[in-house]
Amino acid sequence: RCHQRSVAMLDIPFPPFLAFLGSLGVLCVALVGAWCQHWRGGFSLDGTSRTFNWHPVLMVTGLVVLYGAAALVYRIPATWSGPKLPWKLLHGGLALAAFLLTVLGLAAVFSFHNSNGTPNMYSLHSWMGLATVLLFSCQWAAGFGAFLLPWAPAWLRQLYKPIHVFFGSTILLLSVASCVSGINEKLFFSLKNGTSQYKLLPAEAVFANTLGMLILLFGVLVVAALARPSWKRPDPDSLDSRQ
Amino acid sequence: RCHQRSVAMLDIPFPPFLAFLGSLGVLCVALVGAWCQHWRGGFSLDGTSRTFNWHPVLMVTGLVVLYGAAALVYRIPATWSGPKLPWKLLHGGLALAAFLLTVLGLAAVFSFHNSNGTPNMYSLHSWMGLATVLLFSCQWAAGFGAFLLPWAPAWLRQLYKPIHVFFGSTILLLSVASCVSGINEKLFFSLKNGTSQYKLLPAEAVFANTLGMLILLFGVLVVAALARPSWKRPDPDSLDSRQ
Repeated sequence: RCHQRSVAMLDIPFPPFLAFLGSLGVLCVALVGAWCQHWRGGFSLDGTSRTFNWHPVLMVTGLVVLYGAAALVYRIPATWSGPKLPWKLLHGGLALAAFLLTVLGLAAVFSFHNSNGTPNMYSLHSWMGLATVLLFSCQWAAGFGAFLLPWAPAWLRQLYKPIHVFFGSTILLLSVASCVSGINEKLFFSLKNGTSQYKLLPAEAVFANTLGMLILLFGVLVVAALARPSWKRPDPDSLDSRQ
Repeated sequence: RCHQRSVAMLDIPFPPFLAFLGSLGVLCVALVGAWCQHWRGGFSLDGTSRTFNWHPVLMVTGLVVLYGAAALVYRIPATWSGPKLPWKLLHGGLALAAFLLTVLGLAAVFSFHNSNGTPNMYSLHSWMGLATVLLFSCQWAAGFGAFLLPWAPAWLRQLYKPIHVFFGSTILLLSVASCVSGINEKLFFSLKNGTSQYKLLPAEAVFANTLGMLILLFGVLVVAALARPSWKRPDPDSLDSRQ
């Protein structure tokens, strides 16, 4: 009986978990916006650090939160029956929206660097971040070609699907790692003088460190939700369903 | 026929992949050692930055490479038959060695900070890194209690196993993210003056950025190897084996 109780305790249904994850995602977007607005001077398109501020906001919104939403589409039980095409379009559409915000996020930082004569692509954060975006673009294009265009043969879809699923989770964790290294780097850049030094842990540092930890938590929870067997779309080809 | 050829091409056996991963892990350890030795002044126990240098070497060796080795033990086909206890001891022993190196790695950075009056635990890198080490300690203790001590009932082992497996991969990716943010941070600290500024991408920056990308690759490949269904230990309780 103790066994059954423990198992039942772990057996959370997907909808309330999704509601929690959604709130956490919205919170991350709100916090990164508040950080840039309150402590980093707000937003503009004039090539100053106010242009740079779009970079963290767009990356957290696109590459983490919208990307996470796209990844979770097929965990909604309503997607498991009926025609699959509308859900494919939702999955691909959310991923495309995430990708477009990501490209704008790259444009923000390149434009800031170019306006200020700062070189692009020198830090490990930028190398990892660009590698993540390149993997994401391959993932989107390959997913579009294999699953949305009608020409791919069934065996190719079947072969590619586990690869697409694996890279879905991996790219999200790389995105999260890129965000965390970027927040860390930005705090070392910005918090340098007097009592506001990063190492003295002023309010901004606690705020942005907390943001980084919440982004990490969001990424790990999305990947955990994706990995949970009982939340997966039942595979029509599996032994269980054929029986 | 084209289908079969493609599938066969993807069907790499585990041993050569493990040899490649092992070489990549040894390369990461060699490169982080070379970085600290050649550019950062080498190693000592005197509380200077030469004490700090043990931190990246011990973390990459323990929390990434040895940890990865521990995680992969059950992918070796020889572990799938015969008595399981020796392999459990190898898995737990490698993880314990990884944990001990990690604790020494923490000691190195705390001792450096304390000798220099630098506060501890202020950066997002340190928050994420410590969270990773705490998760690792829970993972090790729970694994020891559930799988090595003889008292855990079978239902508890069965309930906990997928959680242990999920956190196994997750903790490795958090370790890798911590290493990357740490290398990024260290390069901003160290490369500040004249022609050696990080943004001018001197040789040391290219070297350490490459190291960071190789650590990322190592982590992703280990997690991919763990996720690959055909490399998993056949589960004696699964439908397939019972039939």
